[in-house]
Amino acid sequence: MSRFLSERYRSLEPYTPGEQPKCDGLIKLNTNENPFPPSPGVTDAINSAELGKLNLYPDPEAKDLIEAASRYYGVPENMIMAGNGSDELLAFSFMAFQKNGRIAFPDISYGFYEVYAGIFGATALKIPLDDSLKVNIDDYCGAEAMIVLANPNAQTGTAVGLDEIEKVLKTNENSVVLVDEAYVNFGAESSLQLTQKYDNLLVIQTFSKARNLAGGRVGLAFADSEIIKDLNKIKYSFNPYNLNRLSILAAVASINDDEYFKSCVGQITDTRKIFVGGMEELGFFALPSLANFVLVRHDKISGAEFYRELRERNILVRHFNDRRIADYVRITIGGREDMAALTEAAREILARRD
Amino acid sequence: MSRFLSERYRSLEPYTPGEQPKCDGLIKLNTNENPFPPSPGVTDAINSAELGKLNLYPDPEAKDLIEAASRYYGVPENMIMAGNGSDELLAFSFMAFQKNGRIAFPDISYGFYEVYAGIFGATALKIPLDDSLKVNIDDYCGAEAMIVLANPNAQTGTAVGLDEIEKVLKTNENSVVLVDEAYVNFGAESSLQLTQKYDNLLVIQTFSKARNLAGGRVGLAFADSEIIKDLNKIKYSFNPYNLNRLSILAAVASINDDEYFKSCVGQITDTRKIFVGGMEELGFFALPSLANFVLVRHDKISGAEFYRELRERNILVRHFNDRRIADYVRITIGGREDMAALTEAAREILARRD
Repeated sequence: MSRFLSERYRSLEPYTPGEQPKCDGLIKLNTNENPFPPSPGVTDAINSAELGKLNLYPDPEAKDLIEAASRYYGVPENMIMAGNGSDELLAFSFMAFQKNGRIAFPDISYGFYEVYAGIFGATALKIPLDDSLKVNIDDYCGAEAMIVLANPNAQTGTAVGLDEIEKVLKTNENSVVLVDEAYVNFGAESSLQLTQKYDNLLVIQTFSKARNLAGGRVGLAFADSEIIKDLNKIKYSFNPYNLNRLSILAAVASINDDEYFKSCVGQITDTRKIFVGGMEELGFFALPSLANFVLVRHDKISGAEFYRELRERNILVRHFNDRRIADYVRITIGGREDMAALTEAAREILARRD
Repeated sequence: MSRFLSERYRSLEPYTPGEQPKCDGLIKLNTNENPFPPSPGVTDAINSAELGKLNLYPDPEAKDLIEAASRYYGVPENMIMAGNGSDELLAFSFMAFQKNGRIAFPDISYGFYEVYAGIFGATALKIPLDDSLKVNIDDYCGAEAMIVLANPNAQTGTAVGLDEIEKVLKTNENSVVLVDEAYVNFGAESSLQLTQKYDNLLVIQTFSKARNLAGGRVGLAFADSEIIKDLNKIKYSFNPYNLNRLSILAAVASINDDEYFKSCVGQITDTRKIFVGGMEELGFFALPSLANFVLVRHDKISGAEFYRELRERNILVRHFNDRRIADYVRITIGGREDMAALTEAAREILARRD
């Protein structure tokens, strides 16, 4: 730390992203990446003609992307905004909409929420998941805070229904309710259409998971046009050219190739079913996941040990030290062969403990 | 504005980027873009193998880029950080290093500085340029504020020498002195090597101007390793994966093709000389510019009128309403033919006023 850093950031605890090891030959199931390459349309779109224009600024409005998203989702253009990954949109939202300096979210969720609350000087109200690690929606009714719900929830993969989201929206009319739908395409219901009914709903999606573009850094926000105006005000006061030319092209191409998108998502949800079945046969308990990852535990091995044993076999998953999920590891649903290899490794690890 | 926006951002005045018109056939000299496409190495680097990996997250440390910059500039890796354009690095810096809530910069400079001060709740001390629109360095000695100097200065193009930068550094030992070198490669002296001598110096450069990559959004910060640690703390609390995979590849390729870089810069500075000569022959006064733009005025026509007359002839330049430079227009140094077309248009515009 330098002697110049502002007092307010001195005790800031930054987010720790999942490990991105440089070594080859690793089965990498720790950061919820999509195992399939992006749509061939992406490669076509980023052609030499477009690369030759990189000396020119991108369109700060990313209008081509907003138009494509508007057509695809049937939401008006003035209710959509693009970000440099959904993380940037989350940051802008936490800046703009904290309610009475308070932001409420589940105690187990995307770890970044607490970091955002910290950097923007808000009080983080961490509301415990219930004993089965699910969101109890009544805890969020009349919270007198900005509310942030990942749906499906990060780390756990469990989802709530639209009726529950509506209950939160109706009982928090004067607060923004942010629904982070990073994982929504793997089986949960999207709240997107509710943005046309509730002026306090903000839905954020990412291209990093279901859309095979984690390396491209693109996210979208959907909300009432006044909320989108506010977020743009923050963006134009922070980083107007937040999306580069190539990521805009990639995102548009992804939206335009719906067949590929659905095929990849279908394969991942099929693999999830097979993988969970195989792990359950080995005596694992898996939280019911509607995401592209699953949280599993086994009575015979701690989460930390299972993580280490897999790591020794060149399989990287994620373990969180948080007390409530310390017994678990979080496993990304990758390709069919990778998941079979993990199941086989788990069988071997358990066998050696008998 | 929604009813949810935090009080502190309600009166925020965002930055207005230069117009990015969609129409064809325009000679676009309003946003200081480089007229040459990126190095052929950029096109080679962003090949189909790399595009096929867009499903994977980028390296949050952008280590390949930091290594390339370290080798090229001879600065240790722990003294360098990459941003999503230099704008993002400026934003992080204004957040982190305001001194007693004060940030000092010239009254005519990059318009974004005042916006950043506003969004991060700092008082903007706008120090007037002298009557010849140059920085009077004594005004920044012992300022009891974070100091931000664009060198060459934005809008005016004039530069200060390293002796003057050192004077500011020595008389503000307890404040960060940020030198924004967006335009430094077109003829000014870089303060980069002084970062190894002064722990309060922060130098920020961009790939948008001299490096032909405005569409790629890449910037670099150079400073004492403790300042870089602080900036990373902000980044990892805001947007850890701030650079996408393709922009990292493009930036590395740009650094590695030094011949192309120097050739483009050489052509632009040659063109600047020819263009300024031609405009002076027509009776224009041009501020002495070491940037890839030049501020010009003529006694026979106001800045606003000259802007409009050029616009009617499909030539887009930039006019600022600021009282002190309202007589001028700012003209980007583009390709040789575009500049000749502008000079010819200026001749015609003036002839009609005789």
